Amino acid sequence: MSLTGYSIGVASIRTRSEPRTGPLMAQVSEMARSLSMAMCVGYPEKEGDRIFNAAAVFDDTGRLIHHYRKTHLFGAYELAVFTPGGAGELACSRLNSSSKPGSLAFGLMICMDCEYPEPARLLALQGAEIIILPTALGAGPVQHLTPRCVVPTRALENHIFIAYANFCGPAAGPDDSAFVGQSAVIGPDGMDLCRAPGPESIHRHASVDSACVRCADVESAAFAADVARNPYLTARRPELYAAISDAAACAAAGRA
Amino acid sequence: MSLTGYSIGVASIRTRSEPRTGPLMAQVSEMARSLSMAMCVGYPEKEGDRIFNAAAVFDDTGRLIHHYRKTHLFGAYELAVFTPGGAGELACSRLNSSSKPGSLAFGLMICMDCEYPEPARLLALQGAEIIILPTALGAGPVQHLTPRCVVPTRALENHIFIAYANFCGPAAGPDDSAFVGQSAVIGPDGMDLCRAPGPESIHRHASVDSACVRCADVESAAFAADVARNPYLTARRPELYAAISDAAACAAAGRA
Repeated sequence: MSLTGYSIGVASIRTRSEPRTGPLMAQVSEMARSLSMAMCVGYPEKEGDRIFNAAAVFDDTGRLIHHYRKTHLFGAYELAVFTPGGAGELACSRLNSSSKPGSLAFGLMICMDCEYPEPARLLALQGAEIIILPTALGAGPVQHLTPRCVVPTRALENHIFIAYANFCGPAAGPDDSAFVGQSAVIGPDGMDLCRAPGPESIHRHASVDSACVRCADVESAAFAADVARNPYLTARRPELYAAISDAAACAAAGRA
Repeated sequence: MSLTGYSIGVASIRTRSEPRTGPLMAQVSEMARSLSMAMCVGYPEKEGDRIFNAAAVFDDTGRLIHHYRKTHLFGAYELAVFTPGGAGELACSRLNSSSKPGSLAFGLMICMDCEYPEPARLLALQGAEIIILPTALGAGPVQHLTPRCVVPTRALENHIFIAYANFCGPAAGPDDSAFVGQSAVIGPDGMDLCRAPGPESIHRHASVDSACVRCADVESAAFAADVARNPYLTARRPELYAAISDAAACAAAGRA
């Protein structure tokens, strides 16, 4: 929700929401074009009476090439304001750069989506090479688990890059939320290619130092040996997994 | 494979394999009965011409109450000797103690199974409260990832206890394998309830000290707040997940 802020309250989310062709989105498109750089932005998307927790990718010509509506909402706040994305959201697109040959298959998830194993698996099964994952993970007793364990596990189990961009520091909004940072690019072997610090470092230096903003090379061929050793995608046993998409099995799991 | 050793070579595995009613298994059953303690043991199970990487649970009266054949084999060694378990393996049983009221729903996985998200999910959807996970994870550059990231992620995403028992130290066999230990019991919030050290500590003390052998209370009610905050099982969207059990999608994922 980088376009508007996340913890700004239901009323502000509604006020600031706009369609994917809205004026703020047009400015992001223009920014991508003028910088010749693909950009991903999270925002509250308005469509009729509904608002989605959405993210969009513009290519380096400013064209909107991928759009995603969060499929797994988190908590009472999100359920009060957002409609979840439905069938077809967890799909891949290809990013072509105007200055580099080749293309990159990518998909999007947002925040809580990554804590379920299914969304990343669905994207990997469609051939995604990288998942872009904007998130606003709040501070709490297990705040290290998602950036340090869950997200690397998603990368490893799917042999996929993940670009994890997490809000860091105090929220720009009416509540006292704080977010834990630790944005990272993780390789298909589950190891960090780069990682930004958490809010402690940010506060200490009173600014975001250069260590927080790094580039990582995304080159799948470098991980061929890892993929061969543990062929998580090709050695799957889909014939055993039917219950994962069985609604009755899901309902039965409502354990007291 | 605690009954025979793991890295003992194909020929030794074949020689030492026995049916689930074999003489070594009978001794384990008697040990459980005489100690009044449920026990889980991994072993190479012989059935006709086939050998399975299997594990069995005996209750505190010595009765075999659960049996599992590993569904996701690892590497050339395992594929050369073992037949993978098929449909019906990833099922739950209930453990009744002769000295305590109530029962505990549990399932088994073995080693590499945990690196796929599907087996643990299937057990959780059947109501497992704890997964018992014997494993022999070898040393390597990313050896911390499975015990420290993947296994806690399985516990967290399924709100389930995991009892992770990993081989520690040099192998008892013809190769120079070494195993990384870090056995743990992990709670449904993804946090360690107890954790044994890795082989460095074992070697330094020249024995397994008491820190390696601990008990953990398994009481789901203590984690009700975590489950309510992130209802990973009940808030799933199974209607979106059909491709996970689609064999064609699996085949298509064989990315070059």
